[in-house]
Amino acid sequence: MSERSEGVTASVGVPPVIDLNADLGEGFGRWQLTDDEALLSVVTSANVACGFHAGDPATMRRVCELAAERGVVIGAQVSYRDLAGFGRRAMDVPPDELAAEITYQIGALEVFARAAGARVGYVKPHGALYNRCVHDEEQARAVVDGIRAAGGGLPVLGLPGSRLHEAAARAQLPVTGEAFADRAYTPEGTLVPRREPGAVIHDPDEVVKRALGMARDQAVTARDGRRVAVPARSLCLHGDTPGAADLARRVRSELTAAGVHVRSFV
Amino acid sequence: MSERSEGVTASVGVPPVIDLNADLGEGFGRWQLTDDEALLSVVTSANVACGFHAGDPATMRRVCELAAERGVVIGAQVSYRDLAGFGRRAMDVPPDELAAEITYQIGALEVFARAAGARVGYVKPHGALYNRCVHDEEQARAVVDGIRAAGGGLPVLGLPGSRLHEAAARAQLPVTGEAFADRAYTPEGTLVPRREPGAVIHDPDEVVKRALGMARDQAVTARDGRRVAVPARSLCLHGDTPGAADLARRVRSELTAAGVHVRSFV
Amino acid sequence: MSERSEGVTASVGVPPVIDLNADLGEGFGRWQLTDDEALLSVVTSANVACGFHAGDPATMRRVCELAAERGVVIGAQVSYRDLAGFGRRAMDVPPDELAAEITYQIGALEVFARAAGARVGYVKPHGALYNRCVHDEEQARAVVDGIRAAGGGLPVLGLPGSRLHEAAARAQLPVTGEAFADRAYTPEGTLVPRREPGAVIHDPDEVVKRALGMARDQAVTARDGRRVAVPARSLCLHGDTPGAADLARRVRSELTAAGVHVRSFV
Amino acid sequence: MSERSEGVTASVGVPPVIDLNADLGEGFGRWQLTDDEALLSVVTSANVACGFHAGDPATMRRVCELAAERGVVIGAQVSYRDLAGFGRRAMDVPPDELAAEITYQIGALEVFARAAGARVGYVKPHGALYNRCVHDEEQARAVVDGIRAAGGGLPVLGLPGSRLHEAAARAQLPVTGEAFADRAYTPEGTLVPRREPGAVIHDPDEVVKRALGMARDQAVTARDGRRVAVPARSLCLHGDTPGAADLARRVRSELTAAGVHVRSFV
Repeated sequence: MSERSEGVTASVGVPPVIDLNADLGEGFGRWQLTDDEALLSVVTSANVACGFHAGDPATMRRVCELAAERGVVIGAQVSYRDLAGFGRRAMDVPPDELAAEITYQIGALEVFARAAGARVGYVKPHGALYNRCVHDEEQARAVVDGIRAAGGGLPVLGLPGSRLHEAAARAQLPVTGEAFADRAYTPEGTLVPRREPGAVIHDPDEVVKRALGMARDQAVTARDGRRVAVPARSLCLHGDTPGAADLARRVRSELTAAGVHVRSFV
Repeated sequence: MSERSEGVTASVGVPPVIDLNADLGEGFGRWQLTDDEALLSVVTSANVACGFHAGDPATMRRVCELAAERGVVIGAQVSYRDLAGFGRRAMDVPPDELAAEITYQIGALEVFARAAGARVGYVKPHGALYNRCVHDEEQARAVVDGIRAAGGGLPVLGLPGSRLHEAAARAQLPVTGEAFADRAYTPEGTLVPRREPGAVIHDPDEVVKRALGMARDQAVTARDGRRVAVPARSLCLHGDTPGAADLARRVRSELTAAGVHVRSFV
Repeated sequence: MSERSEGVTASVGVPPVIDLNADLGEGFGRWQLTDDEALLSVVTSANVACGFHAGDPATMRRVCELAAERGVVIGAQVSYRDLAGFGRRAMDVPPDELAAEITYQIGALEVFARAAGARVGYVKPHGALYNRCVHDEEQARAVVDGIRAAGGGLPVLGLPGSRLHEAAARAQLPVTGEAFADRAYTPEGTLVPRREPGAVIHDPDEVVKRALGMARDQAVTARDGRRVAVPARSLCLHGDTPGAADLARRVRSELTAAGVHVRSFV
Repeated sequence: MSERSEGVTASVGVPPVIDLNADLGEGFGRWQLTDDEALLSVVTSANVACGFHAGDPATMRRVCELAAERGVVIGAQVSYRDLAGFGRRAMDVPPDELAAEITYQIGALEVFARAAGARVGYVKPHGALYNRCVHDEEQARAVVDGIRAAGGGLPVLGLPGSRLHEAAARAQLPVTGEAFADRAYTPEGTLVPRREPGAVIHDPDEVVKRALGMARDQAVTARDGRRVAVPARSLCLHGDTPGAADLARRVRSELTAAGVHVRSFV
């Protein structure tokens, strides 16, 4: 079974494999946000901000250098052009403009990855663009067009079943599904919206337990207690909260202790 | 004699060769400035804005496509990050930041050049950065560091004798000197500063005549009437004034009529 | 009947009164767009860009000075923060942020108006924000909150019947309706969307004729030939197309010749 | 002796008075930097970022509301337009543009101050602009022009003896001198440049001791051990380092315990 395919399932005798990804390099100039140094010792995939919602050039260079040193795969965390809103405000960008903005960001990151002796290994949209591309086919296609224009047939990391993944698959781009160990799921296997109570899981023990279940069984307990399939080859860890690096480290060590191979999907 | 070396001199029996470069893609979103379409039919090298002083992603993509179609070499016109000042306000950017900003811009353009089936063929600083790097060794070195980090050993188009050219040569980057047919020169072969009377030559006939002299004889008549050497392999044409495209076309046709080969330096 | 109320109707013996408004100061740094000088000789209300979609501080200062000299009322043309998209890309800005962004822009313009011996006389949203606030109650209320926070009970210029006007009226802000002489109308009195054929009227004679009808009879011929009421105290003239100033001048002189008083609504 | 004059000296029987100022609101969107809430309980003057180096509109609104509630005077912390560099990169901005940029920022803050029931009480340049205006007469005059255009004859907080204070005084603007308890001074009474060893004093006890000396005696011990006059009516406290709020609180309480009146200069 291809490492890049979505919906990897645990088979008898085959140890489960999972990727850990986190958003990194999300400072801008004087402002810092993510603990890049610490998280790059834990994750296997780094979603690096490319300058549109965060990420100044010097930070991009440094994160690429650290990631390359530690063998962490560099991904382009592309976004709407919105520093003031941190890319969290959905924008009605015309498809042609959006595609060009995506290509631009990938190119800007690629040069730093290359300078560090690495390359951009995948693309993951950030914030409002990520959410919009779950349902919005036009923007999903524009993002895919932008990725294709950048060349190299880059894999797309995103929500399984999203319009983005559908558009990527149609364009022959590899897709990788991710799951969120700190988010509640509906019985349909979708995320409980953030505005609903209990949407985010704060208890570290619970997060670790869910991460283990997701990695080993490709499943999680939904809000109503039912078991629901979560076909994910990658787990997204958050890097912008206090204690984020500690929790990430714990998730990784317990995954390893449980016999799960933590390895990039690229 | 290498095409890339500075100071090409006319030799008996060898027809003179000159490159024509112009700043292109200097709009931003709704705003247009340069007549890209017309100038890309005239020049052999396009200095394409990379988003820091001008140049949105969609414009960069379009200019690269047009340039590639017409066989015009694409150059990265890198700048200070200053949209509000169009890159015309010198900035004391720390060398490390400046280098990263240069690398970022080259990468962002490179991806569009590649998507168009071409590549970035050279780098030319814009505006205040260009002027600053004539004299400021620290910034000149930072720009060269940024170019080197982008890889490919890109040639640097600039003023002969500038700190930028010195730093580039020390770093083994090819350098190409350019001259300005519409600017007055001192007897020392430097440009008369813009604030002095007569610094800019507006008479089209005079501009054409000087372009011919620069291309054929590598020389121009200085302000005091003396003949002065101008070792240039490229002539910079302005693209942001009314009639700019017409004048550029005339310069090119008269150069050709006079037996000068108009050809990129890359 | 109050000058500020919407739906002024022509009465026997009372000469009709109309305001002419246009978007001005829509350059940014090196880039120019609107012919501010010419249009300020024609319009009675200047919608001045405040720096979020266009409008650098030096341009804002100059436009305010010219407007004050000529007795043109200064309005704050507030926008989403989107220079790259010229404010034409709708954004899901949280209400609290949007309100603050509106207040900021009004304050930034107010200081230049005051320095020129004038004041900000009204507010008109620009581009995508204008369109969004026709239907989106949440954003309309946020814009109104932002206007109220700026103080002075500023009138709101916009589309009659829009959510924006409803929210403004509820907040006790005066509202002024505007009409577009160069846009086709539906039989319901709404604008034909731009993407539909015939949405924009390019024939100058037709534009002038419609402007006269709108000013004198508060009515226009809809797409289907029926006569429809257009309760407008102001006509919006476009300033960013070639010939815009000439057409504006012609509209004004024919209005005057027809006995219509051209006068600000403030 | 006027509260606003520079060089207040301790007289027999008159208790010394000092203002405490700090840079506040220096986040931008998602990014936070200064502990605004805590510092607004300590300082008497808040230098509020106005959006050019930091300071989004929602933050400006919140800081103004808190400052107004607590009776802290609001000052406009104006800067070069440089979010990526946090206003720490000097820029050769033409005087006319610079003046307009200053006016714009003051206006943008003024509207939030007014909405909070307060007003902008003074102006203090930030970062590279502050440093440049110590020596650069042209930029100092441009800043003063921008302040004057904003109206109200706002006092200028800055370094005693700076070109900025000279230009402000010539323009009849009140000036207030400030001193830095955590910076070493030369025997001439100027600041030891940051790049020199010992330029910044990290020991809290030493900072407190120097603050007391500055407030009571208008003097400080210079690098060479000599006593040097520091004519300051305000002390600048830093708000962007860990423990900053604690140190500020301690400075204030020890000043009060020593009989110094902590009071705004406005």
